[in-house]
Amino acid sequence: MKRIAIDAMGGDHAPQALVEGANRALQEFSDIEIQLYGDEASIKKYLTASERVRIIHTDEKIASDDEPTKAIRQKKQASMVLAAKAVKAGEADAMLSAGNTGALLAAGFFIVGRIKNIDRPGLLSTLPTVSGQGFDMLDLGANAENTAHHLHQYATLGSFYAESVRGVAKPRVGLLNNGTESSKGDPLRKEAYELLAADSSLNFIGNVEARDLMEGVADVVVADGFTGNAVLKSIEGTAISIMGQLKKSILGGGLKAKLGAWLLKDSLRDLKNSLDYSSAGGAVLFGLKAPVVKTHGSSDAKAVYSTIRQIRTMLESDVVGKSVIEFSDAKEEK
Amino acid sequence: MKRIAIDAMGGDHAPQALVEGANRALQEFSDIEIQLYGDEASIKKYLTASERVRIIHTDEKIASDDEPTKAIRQKKQASMVLAAKAVKAGEADAMLSAGNTGALLAAGFFIVGRIKNIDRPGLLSTLPTVSGQGFDMLDLGANAENTAHHLHQYATLGSFYAESVRGVAKPRVGLLNNGTESSKGDPLRKEAYELLAADSSLNFIGNVEARDLMEGVADVVVADGFTGNAVLKSIEGTAISIMGQLKKSILGGGLKAKLGAWLLKDSLRDLKNSLDYSSAGGAVLFGLKAPVVKTHGSSDAKAVYSTIRQIRTMLESDVVGKSVIEFSDAKEEK
Repeated sequence: MKRIAIDAMGGDHAPQALVEGANRALQEFSDIEIQLYGDEASIKKYLTASERVRIIHTDEKIASDDEPTKAIRQKKQASMVLAAKAVKAGEADAMLSAGNTGALLAAGFFIVGRIKNIDRPGLLSTLPTVSGQGFDMLDLGANAENTAHHLHQYATLGSFYAESVRGVAKPRVGLLNNGTESSKGDPLRKEAYELLAADSSLNFIGNVEARDLMEGVADVVVADGFTGNAVLKSIEGTAISIMGQLKKSILGGGLKAKLGAWLLKDSLRDLKNSLDYSSAGGAVLFGLKAPVVKTHGSSDAKAVYSTIRQIRTMLESDVVGKSVIEFSDAKEEK
Repeated sequence: MKRIAIDAMGGDHAPQALVEGANRALQEFSDIEIQLYGDEASIKKYLTASERVRIIHTDEKIASDDEPTKAIRQKKQASMVLAAKAVKAGEADAMLSAGNTGALLAAGFFIVGRIKNIDRPGLLSTLPTVSGQGFDMLDLGANAENTAHHLHQYATLGSFYAESVRGVAKPRVGLLNNGTESSKGDPLRKEAYELLAADSSLNFIGNVEARDLMEGVADVVVADGFTGNAVLKSIEGTAISIMGQLKKSILGGGLKAKLGAWLLKDSLRDLKNSLDYSSAGGAVLFGLKAPVVKTHGSSDAKAVYSTIRQIRTMLESDVVGKSVIEFSDAKEEK
């Protein structure tokens, strides 16, 4: 049985979206058990599942604007903190939250704990490509600074993830850089390039540019947390702005445009779906002793369900266990 | 008379696009003079203007895959090099190229030369926002590494540009960061924040996130060259991929979708135009003693024309001259 601890009180639609996502996952998967941390009465309102599910009541929760590290230290009974402690104590195998990202990172680092020899866990998400296959990118912002050694660890972690969770054979690993030539970039990129090229366990394809990510230039894209965060937000922001512009242009385009949009609605829905990466699950704080997964604050029940499914695959493929072994006897390279 | 030196041999559609763009600009603006550097016979094929235009013949040109610094040093008679030398010698007031970006940066640094007290000229472009107003961002990749002091200089240069060339009063300057709170970012961002906040000549609005750029969160966005380059390419790549997906989805959607697209064609054209920033001109290598402007390698005559118009506005507003004065007695802060 795979035991998943859910912070039922985090996110814009808590606890409803969390509980309804759990209902659906429990129905679909008979090998999972869900622990819902939060206000019992509010959770019960939405809970339809009755088997393999437990509510662990608490009054306390972390707000979206709480200062992360302080919140984790001071709100010892918060739903997010209790879920992390359950993982730490071995009572749950993984955790999920739609709440305060910074606090979840802090809970991951300080409560769940890092895998031995992994210095800086990174935030990984599967982002969309035009082919529908997607690519995994990390670090998306768990860290503001990274060394070349961290980037090398991300390449290994990302490869494990793409292979184990998404079933990609020999994932093509690219280093995000400001040009494709091997000589490109700042000293960090040049050093990381050397480390990646020298590691025969990786299918390293060299430098990749942000322009080509959505075209599927690599299966795993390695970046420092600052740049990865900026690229992620650029992609999101551009997609949202373009779709918004298209909508505005249709609404302002009179009857002809509206009729056109109606005739095109299947195509427009396809486009919207191809950009919607919530079905690929949430962002994994990877490099910890257990899966700690953040789903978007605006997640609905479907996104929560997808994230539970993703966690289930992570547990089934034991991608974290494999990472522990890989790094357990890693040389202290740093 | 504003004298503009054009490298007629750089870019995918050289010399045709360059010459045709020049024809149009010469017709429209009676206060410009154009110098076309390149192969006389090929240029003459497209040249219709006869006044205020000169061809300076040369057989040599820089290829798109030439190693930049080497090309500038060894191909002393290349059209790009001669154009830069004309600026250096005071025979032209500005230059334009659609060729090898790296080589143009090198020509700018080594031939045209930096403004005194500006350490690292930055690449600036006006990028699109949904409102149509646009924002200026720098550095977009002239440098792989920057200090906080450079970022401060970019804020001043970007403000000058937005105000002088685009007519934005008190341009709102934002620092690209991984969160909006003042405490966010790596040491570089924290130090830059302090410098920007302390400079009362700037309308500094704090940190901005890449997600909000297209929504027009700031008029000037300051970034280090590595991140700026990644963000620019993410925006471009996402826009191209989405428009490509939309097209594919329409073409694969049968008769109904095609009819819909036909009815929607005005709206779709509006959308495409709002994303097309070639009409805002090219990328300025800003911080040099004269305007050195790069237009996209794929530029057509219209994009070249827009870039000449932009250069004319830069010369008319004397934005470079103002920068020279601003920095001439700047304290050696570094």
